[in-house]
Amino acid sequence: MAVASDRDYRYMARALQLARNGLYTTHPNPRVGCVLVRDDRIIGEGWHVKAGDDHAEIAALKNAQNAEGATVYVTLEPCSHHGRTPPCADALVKAGVSKVVAAMQDPNPLVAGNGLKRLREAGIETVCGVLEDDARRLNRGFVQRMTTGRPFVRSKLAMSLDGRTALASGESQWITSHAARQDVHRLRAQSSAILTGIDTVLADDPALTARIDADVLQPLRIVLDSRLRMPASAQLAKLPGRSLILTCSEDRHKIAALENAGFEVHQLDARNGRIDLQALMPFLAGQHINDLFVEAGPTLNGALLAENRVDEWIVYMAPCVLGDRGRGLFDLNIETMADKKTLKLADVRQVGPDLKLTYTVF
Amino acid sequence: MAVASDRDYRYMARALQLARNGLYTTHPNPRVGCVLVRDDRIIGEGWHVKAGDDHAEIAALKNAQNAEGATVYVTLEPCSHHGRTPPCADALVKAGVSKVVAAMQDPNPLVAGNGLKRLREAGIETVCGVLEDDARRLNRGFVQRMTTGRPFVRSKLAMSLDGRTALASGESQWITSHAARQDVHRLRAQSSAILTGIDTVLADDPALTARIDADVLQPLRIVLDSRLRMPASAQLAKLPGRSLILTCSEDRHKIAALENAGFEVHQLDARNGRIDLQALMPFLAGQHINDLFVEAGPTLNGALLAENRVDEWIVYMAPCVLGDRGRGLFDLNIETMADKKTLKLADVRQVGPDLKLTYTVF
Repeated sequence: MAVASDRDYRYMARALQLARNGLYTTHPNPRVGCVLVRDDRIIGEGWHVKAGDDHAEIAALKNAQNAEGATVYVTLEPCSHHGRTPPCADALVKAGVSKVVAAMQDPNPLVAGNGLKRLREAGIETVCGVLEDDARRLNRGFVQRMTTGRPFVRSKLAMSLDGRTALASGESQWITSHAARQDVHRLRAQSSAILTGIDTVLADDPALTARIDADVLQPLRIVLDSRLRMPASAQLAKLPGRSLILTCSEDRHKIAALENAGFEVHQLDARNGRIDLQALMPFLAGQHINDLFVEAGPTLNGALLAENRVDEWIVYMAPCVLGDRGRGLFDLNIETMADKKTLKLADVRQVGPDLKLTYTVF
Repeated sequence: MAVASDRDYRYMARALQLARNGLYTTHPNPRVGCVLVRDDRIIGEGWHVKAGDDHAEIAALKNAQNAEGATVYVTLEPCSHHGRTPPCADALVKAGVSKVVAAMQDPNPLVAGNGLKRLREAGIETVCGVLEDDARRLNRGFVQRMTTGRPFVRSKLAMSLDGRTALASGESQWITSHAARQDVHRLRAQSSAILTGIDTVLADDPALTARIDADVLQPLRIVLDSRLRMPASAQLAKLPGRSLILTCSEDRHKIAALENAGFEVHQLDARNGRIDLQALMPFLAGQHINDLFVEAGPTLNGALLAENRVDEWIVYMAPCVLGDRGRGLFDLNIETMADKKTLKLADVRQVGPDLKLTYTVF
């Protein structure tokens, strides 16, 4: 394979920028951008908008009209398999491009190098790995699902500076600022699904929708409800799109009532009377969920932390104090300092008057 | 008064740098630095090291030997009163300097403009207010004590990311990193006194000394102990320097025993069976305490927060989770969101793996 030039990095950066246009809409597909270049001039650009629509390469080819002899910059290896659309590798060969530069191999086992191989077999020069870290980060949920069979799990916490998410009464509106809550809507919009626990639904009757000023493919809404305490009247049942209840209950009567109300009900294995989180993750991957966004209370967050099932914790920390009677973040029983759960601080930024802290697995 | 030039700012910055040499040693005096300049060359420098030693101006005059015609840059107005040392204003007149540039007026009511006035009366040109904000920040405890009769109060908290200062068992060694604990020793060294509650002493038997690699005038150690539960065997009694017990108890027998052990015991007014925090602050100012550093538990911190008696909260936040059974920061009863205590985030920085967050009064 050939080595990348400065020019390659420049055009790939543009392709990544295009790919980000699909941040809120491509799931379960990856976000992909593509730039066609001839004589050091961009002759076509495209990105993948949503599943079923053109892949980025096809959009760029259409944009260019004639791509003969062009170099293709694409943030993900062109596909070689027939999905909902025909293989992009074939379309590039047919268009007569002379070179393809990809940011990364497709982690999808159905592709995994075969797209680039097919191009080389057709006499097209290929380069792979230009701005690979950025490309992986943009699709880390997709990559994780394809390579491990689990979604990328991000959990959001909103707390006072003394680690409280609500007063003893349960009152919590609002601890964090409007700016922080807007930021949460952007994180929701980037996610394939939002996961919460039944206690949160019973307390707040949330909509779990991403309310931002952009086209958004609304995330799936998923509630863990081992004993089917969900009221058929919950707001979640009435919204457009899918709302899933995951349960260990076998109460057919309740299941039928909730399905009637508009929910999808799925039964999962139990462990100690609760949904087995180990079974949950492959189930979610099976639902094509790349990026799971958890907005839950101390019980679910405590269990997820105890079992190390969260890849990234996002903590919004307001500059206020609620006092020791307020509710905490993690229902966890830690007996000695040696057993404390250690994370890694990955990012700090200010959002309005609040701090947004990102922690990853240590 | 004349207007400051770029050159004035440059030399004053140097004078402030010199003043900072006294960060750990001048209390109860302010930190002051002085630069003597003639023909755009520094001919003498000095700073105040500790109470009883030369003031910065005198140190600089001695360093210069001949200061005739020089411009004096000094971070605090030269004194006009006879304290432990004769007035610096007189010494500057006698040395024949031609101009004095001060960063700020002396907030000491015994000076308060009289130093500059005396210089002007002797025919010396004066400028005041160059880098005044920096000069005030360097001596904010001194300024606050002089102008309000209260020390500058800073409270330190060390917590996990979920707002816990210890496990349910009380175990807390260590939540934060070595780097964070070293930083705390620097903050102790900058303080005139360290204040804690008797519960902390009973739990940890702390030394409350500043252990850093520099000359330090060790801060006073002050324990709030309304009912005189202090054991005569406490480590605090045995260390060099003063350890004060503040109490509402009138138990003469206990007081005599603690005094015998090496403590100073002072009686303060009570309110609801505890030391009245409103009476505490003037008492501390009366002890010449400029900067009070609080290292206490949730009871005292809760009371200080409830009464808005802390000027600055320093929160060391470790990237770990201790869980909801761990101990909290503030024993405060907040019933509604409207009553939450709001602070202002003033600074964020990383210390080792931990965050150091500074909050001020909103």
